[in-house]
Amino acid sequence: MCRGDDANCPHFEEHYKTFREDLDHERRGFLRSSFAAAGGLAAIGAGGLSLVTPELARASAKRQPTTRSSHYLPANSDTVHWGYFSKTLKPQVEVESGDIITIETLTHHAGDDLERMVQGDEGAESVYLWTKDEKGVDRRGAGPTDPAVYKKGSGEGQGVHILTGPVYVRGAEPGDVLEVRIIDCTPRPCANPEFTGKAYGSNAAANWGFHYNDFLDGNTREVITIYELDLVSGNNWAEAVYNFKWVPQVDPYGVEHKTIDYPGVPVDHSTTTRNYDVLKGVRLPIRPHFGTLGLAPAEADYVDTIPPNYTGGNIDNWRIGKGAVMYYPVSVDGALLSVGDPHASQGDSELCGTAIECSLTGTFQLILHKKEDLAGTPLEQLNYPMLETKDDWLVHGFSFANYLEELGPNAQSDIYSKSSVDLALRDAFHKMRHFLMTTKGLTEDEAISLITIGCDFGITQVVDGNWGVHAIVKKDIFSGMA
Amino acid sequence: MCRGDDANCPHFEEHYKTFREDLDHERRGFLRSSFAAAGGLAAIGAGGLSLVTPELARASAKRQPTTRSSHYLPANSDTVHWGYFSKTLKPQVEVESGDIITIETLTHHAGDDLERMVQGDEGAESVYLWTKDEKGVDRRGAGPTDPAVYKKGSGEGQGVHILTGPVYVRGAEPGDVLEVRIIDCTPRPCANPEFTGKAYGSNAAANWGFHYNDFLDGNTREVITIYELDLVSGNNWAEAVYNFKWVPQVDPYGVEHKTIDYPGVPVDHSTTTRNYDVLKGVRLPIRPHFGTLGLAPAEADYVDTIPPNYTGGNIDNWRIGKGAVMYYPVSVDGALLSVGDPHASQGDSELCGTAIECSLTGTFQLILHKKEDLAGTPLEQLNYPMLETKDDWLVHGFSFANYLEELGPNAQSDIYSKSSVDLALRDAFHKMRHFLMTTKGLTEDEAISLITIGCDFGITQVVDGNWGVHAIVKKDIFSGMA
Repeated sequence: MCRGDDANCPHFEEHYKTFREDLDHERRGFLRSSFAAAGGLAAIGAGGLSLVTPELARASAKRQPTTRSSHYLPANSDTVHWGYFSKTLKPQVEVESGDIITIETLTHHAGDDLERMVQGDEGAESVYLWTKDEKGVDRRGAGPTDPAVYKKGSGEGQGVHILTGPVYVRGAEPGDVLEVRIIDCTPRPCANPEFTGKAYGSNAAANWGFHYNDFLDGNTREVITIYELDLVSGNNWAEAVYNFKWVPQVDPYGVEHKTIDYPGVPVDHSTTTRNYDVLKGVRLPIRPHFGTLGLAPAEADYVDTIPPNYTGGNIDNWRIGKGAVMYYPVSVDGALLSVGDPHASQGDSELCGTAIECSLTGTFQLILHKKEDLAGTPLEQLNYPMLETKDDWLVHGFSFANYLEELGPNAQSDIYSKSSVDLALRDAFHKMRHFLMTTKGLTEDEAISLITIGCDFGITQVVDGNWGVHAIVKKDIFSGMA
Repeated sequence: MCRGDDANCPHFEEHYKTFREDLDHERRGFLRSSFAAAGGLAAIGAGGLSLVTPELARASAKRQPTTRSSHYLPANSDTVHWGYFSKTLKPQVEVESGDIITIETLTHHAGDDLERMVQGDEGAESVYLWTKDEKGVDRRGAGPTDPAVYKKGSGEGQGVHILTGPVYVRGAEPGDVLEVRIIDCTPRPCANPEFTGKAYGSNAAANWGFHYNDFLDGNTREVITIYELDLVSGNNWAEAVYNFKWVPQVDPYGVEHKTIDYPGVPVDHSTTTRNYDVLKGVRLPIRPHFGTLGLAPAEADYVDTIPPNYTGGNIDNWRIGKGAVMYYPVSVDGALLSVGDPHASQGDSELCGTAIECSLTGTFQLILHKKEDLAGTPLEQLNYPMLETKDDWLVHGFSFANYLEELGPNAQSDIYSKSSVDLALRDAFHKMRHFLMTTKGLTEDEAISLITIGCDFGITQVVDGNWGVHAIVKKDIFSGMA
């Protein structure tokens, strides 16, 4: 069926309009559903303005096959890669532009409470499998994998997120733009019968947090809080279950982890003290979203998942949830989309280092826009990851727009000591100026005045190596334009 | 009539509830009115939670006289002070706690288009009067007033905002908290018959803007855009009328201003080139608010209005509009409230240096909370300016929480070279942690997790010497608390 993406359809334009209206309808239904406070702020289409002009939609549709396919990519030890993006990875699935794909994602913090986040869940169990003899997923990070070199574990935890994928988009080439529509985004129910109808997540106030060297007593500590989502009651908030202070953990290979320095270390709760008297009555609004969603960059073979970059990745903007649309510049053949770092909720800044890290399943439609069709459209020259929600456009500024290129051969380590919010604000300003000038044809002076009066700059995160500031502009602002 | 502030009233509690509901009703009416997109996002009371406990409200009410008075403070050359806060100023009016006061405020950018922002307006004309022999308001800024010393003009423009006041609140002493309820906030209509039914504002992309040394062509320029508000049509947006590049202006005393370096210099448009082809069709949502609202600090006799500080002042948060409530620590006897820097609209960051600078009139209710009554309440230990809106609480972080104290004798000049967003984020984190721990009785670990999951940090401004980051927490989050 034509969803406004079948160029052979005689009713293309009508269907394209219907598609966008349907998504909006879907969104409204979603708002009435159990996760009202969720990504629900964001949805496609209302207001009628889009980064994709009808002409570009038609051109992109023309390049698609006449039938749409749906795909399902589960998360298990065969389908995930842990801690890195890589252009060298074998794709898990190949899709055509326009296809729909449902992708399971797993949080990399499930080791904080295996009982609630792994036990009974076949996929998660295969990924988290770790005995003295065997590890479901050995490499975790872009670091060394040679046991003679590493100290923390294979990959060294230089990159921490479990990513599902990559997804190969046929025909995608460097210079193209991949549009990723997030059609759905739901928490993964706990598979342990003891906790039926719930989902769980972990918030680690960790050593990389902005608060870490700034405790009131002058000491440091890492504290993990486990949160519960009630999937049955329809509550749109999460509540804390308990918290505990990290104490050194010895992993199944015998390595001691004095701090949280390697992902997926199974926490032995016989060594911790769990405090159940925590945040009583506090209801944290749910905003399910993908912390990490993006494409493999061309610059290096193995890229730490932590710092976000021009092809997206770990942007950690809570608005990248249901109803949102991301636009990414394609850097390698096939685009190689991976997704993970699922979050039940997060605030702008992600101050303590993590969100409510909670497994989610997403449904995406991937639309390829070829370089040849972009001239004169708002997506021309897009060299940064861009977000469209129902009401807003957002650009994402980073301390370094393309740190892999800008920081040279040691970029992947240097990035951790060079970031500031000031730099990220500077980059967000540059990107919003570029967006307004290319998309709306404004002069530089017009753009600067509009940015000052009409754009809100927020602090996306200050914990991902390459710090982030986003700039939001309301679509309504342009409603009087011809 | 008792508005929930008359302790002698037998129906005190009922009236207090009614007062807050009325304000909410008022807000809803306002949302339907001509400035829907305005400060209308913020209003008092819904949700039932407040920083002022019923017990504190009762205690504060008990200290008030039995009758409420209303006051009106127009803006003219006798009632304004230009560019500085000062504990040495003679109050313009004395009020009792609980009184209502309407205060006119004038923008300090009216010189950019005298025809639209001054001409025919008696109050503005008296303030802007400047001939070769005479100046309506001589001192403009906290700098030297000795003609033998200054180069730019009296006060040196070290501080730029026209402030109306101060208002002396009887009984206010250091250690108390002043609650300022913004009951109304409306644009000042243009008094020139040629532009009946309009209001005007100026946005100066100025030399102190974050963009200034970062133009695409590598050069610098200052560009002013004049915006129009249509008060008759009910439009909730502003539109650009024209822009012009600043060219050197010679003021009536013969001093040349090559850049925008002294407030209120009358622009001679026979020397400028006005471009009317600007931002066509762009509709900038109106968010009327007071950029500068606060109390005189004790630390110095003359304090530049530009950097915000612990007693408020030039916070430049667009949420400080109709329906908002500010809480300030009182620093000097009488509190000495002044208000100015009126804005029709601004985005978070105020990137280019100014908002749509547009004269407004505000109506305020001032409630004094005595130090003796604060123990055990959320306002205990409040040593920073706090904002309450209908849905949220906000703390304001600055690069330096109290720069006058922290930076020593040269604080007022040093502050301009020492700020960063990173520092302001740090301060906002400290304040939000303090707020959650004192107001909600959370532990530090609980507060840090909540801040990370449930608070959004935004960039208030990066152009006021002492840069600002605000943290927002939704009241709903606490709705499950006993």
